[in-house]
Amino acid sequence: MKLPLEGVLVLEFAQYLSGPCAGLRLADLGARVIKIEHPEKGEAGRKLSIKNLWLDDSSLLFNTINRNKESFAADMNNAEDMETLRRLIARAHVLIHNFRPGVMEKRMLDYESVKAINPSIVYTQISGYGSKGPWAKKPGQDLLVQALSGLAFTTGSYEDNPTPLGLGIGDYLCGNQAVQFILAALIRSRKNGKGTLLELSLLESLIDLQFEFFTTYFASGKMPERAHHHNAHSLLSAPYGIYKTSDGFIAIAMMSLQQLNKMMESQVLTQFSEGDVFSKRDEIKVVIADLLLHHPNDFWIQKAQIFDLWIMPVLNWKQMKTSKGYQVLEMEQEIASSKGGKKITTTRCPIRINNKKLYAGKAAPALNEHTQQIKQSLL
Amino acid sequence: MKLPLEGVLVLEFAQYLSGPCAGLRLADLGARVIKIEHPEKGEAGRKLSIKNLWLDDSSLLFNTINRNKESFAADMNNAEDMETLRRLIARAHVLIHNFRPGVMEKRMLDYESVKAINPSIVYTQISGYGSKGPWAKKPGQDLLVQALSGLAFTTGSYEDNPTPLGLGIGDYLCGNQAVQFILAALIRSRKNGKGTLLELSLLESLIDLQFEFFTTYFASGKMPERAHHHNAHSLLSAPYGIYKTSDGFIAIAMMSLQQLNKMMESQVLTQFSEGDVFSKRDEIKVVIADLLLHHPNDFWIQKAQIFDLWIMPVLNWKQMKTSKGYQVLEMEQEIASSKGGKKITTTRCPIRINNKKLYAGKAAPALNEHTQQIKQSLL
Repeated sequence: MKLPLEGVLVLEFAQYLSGPCAGLRLADLGARVIKIEHPEKGEAGRKLSIKNLWLDDSSLLFNTINRNKESFAADMNNAEDMETLRRLIARAHVLIHNFRPGVMEKRMLDYESVKAINPSIVYTQISGYGSKGPWAKKPGQDLLVQALSGLAFTTGSYEDNPTPLGLGIGDYLCGNQAVQFILAALIRSRKNGKGTLLELSLLESLIDLQFEFFTTYFASGKMPERAHHHNAHSLLSAPYGIYKTSDGFIAIAMMSLQQLNKMMESQVLTQFSEGDVFSKRDEIKVVIADLLLHHPNDFWIQKAQIFDLWIMPVLNWKQMKTSKGYQVLEMEQEIASSKGGKKITTTRCPIRINNKKLYAGKAAPALNEHTQQIKQSLL
Repeated sequence: MKLPLEGVLVLEFAQYLSGPCAGLRLADLGARVIKIEHPEKGEAGRKLSIKNLWLDDSSLLFNTINRNKESFAADMNNAEDMETLRRLIARAHVLIHNFRPGVMEKRMLDYESVKAINPSIVYTQISGYGSKGPWAKKPGQDLLVQALSGLAFTTGSYEDNPTPLGLGIGDYLCGNQAVQFILAALIRSRKNGKGTLLELSLLESLIDLQFEFFTTYFASGKMPERAHHHNAHSLLSAPYGIYKTSDGFIAIAMMSLQQLNKMMESQVLTQFSEGDVFSKRDEIKVVIADLLLHHPNDFWIQKAQIFDLWIMPVLNWKQMKTSKGYQVLEMEQEIASSKGGKKITTTRCPIRINNKKLYAGKAAPALNEHTQQIKQSLL
């Protein structure tokens, strides 16, 4: 299958997760994505290992985020390398960077300078907090942006500390949104030949994620409050939440108490009316939680099926991996290391195009792996 | 400013959050997005109110998600309306639906039928779990998909129940990814004139969000475990997390214990080595938590600034709204209701294009508002 973005050339001046995450998606959609790396140090993410997991000389994480890309080594403090970079930029359609404000300017690789070399470039800069204001020069780190954005007050229950989402949601989301805007800008530049400057920030992405919360707060003047028990969405009423059973956990989505009670058969629950589901949210949730503890997951899931209720078990990754519903998606793919040998298993791009799942088993590049080849083919 | 997607026509056969969220982004980028709604019932989301907040006859939520769109009323059980719809489809570039598998097929609006009318259409279907397997016909509801995907085991601390993210992350993310794939497919269809079938699911989107977790699990055979205290990312070591102070909360990102201790000045902390940060993660976090309780947020934030540490305060929405770092982003925009009168405030599209922030103050449509006008201008 010819991929949608074949022929698109992307230069990635980026490290860690947000920018590289955008590059990964573009690569999976068919773009040629070249990482520009320092000849000795390489991308900073190569050395960021979690749980001490490595593949060749780079972290497992780097290998995961940067599969399906090429590596071009250039020292931005070296005049000759900079001249080569400028010639490469002249050939590119998209440039992505996630340096702090000021870094690309100092290298004369800000939008205006790059546009002078390549008038139709889509120039994309990802920052933590935008380029102005008191936070502009602060580290644009995922947890810090979660903390500032209000997001930590959406999750966990009322008595808990504000609870961050346990993964790099700001980086991931901002990288994903960069792809949206880059592709929209490509559509525009193909029509009018003009360049585009795109600016995104982790903070704006996390505000956008909370758009329902902000709008509700603006309209009511009251901040949404997490439920005292089993919070799953501050703005939703009982029974919505995740509950413990005698041997596991189940999730209960929206339904009336009457519907739920078909399965619970509880006298206590009948004492609450549908008008109570928000005002007595916590009381009701405690009653439900107590009842659910008496039987195992299977008991409740079977009941839920009989009455066609919106209830599902909560799975961990191991349970999920062995479940038919996961396996049928065929989400896994093997990636060989760039030096041959060892393979890692990771997930594929989450799309099916014309009934085909999008696999791309090309490894992450070794530092400097494609420099010569890129010089020969593009410069 | 001419917006990047001007001239693109999108038909949205969608309800609630995932599909409409994709339509909203496309509209903000300049596409003309037409919601196809039942003449009496309208989109189901019109009646889904949270906290009993309404604007005109539809929920505040509906008004938030569907601003900047048009409404076309058609009864898919009525032959005449179906003929009109087919003529409208012939004019469109993109079709989005998020019905359960089988629904569009029954209306003869599946991809093959639609492609027969419009050979270059980008046909996008969003489901809960894909179209095959034991979950295919289950409700594709956000919390249920979070539960099945393993995501709830990323958040909260070890002793907590699996903790869902307190907002509709699956819906939101899948809608955002739909935009990526739609725009890539548009680029392709403009080159080769061919149609594209895109299939996404909430489950695949939430698996993709956890790609680091899955890859780590596959490589190590061990499931990532949430920290017992102050968990913020299972795969990261101490001190990473959110902590209580004497009057608030602060977030501490990656740093060595030695760096942190410049600010903490604790004898106890010096007893741990850098080699302990993962193996004694919980012990270290408890020590840090106890120390932080002795002073207020400002005290710690000032210290952190002196030593240039990656630490920020945790803000709620109210604190955020009054902070300079938020205000400088100018994220808010006013939307009038379609019937004039009342206004709501919501957030803008999280992008700056050529130094301009992307505002779009057009209200969500009243049911049936644009049917006549669309018939006259397009059919």
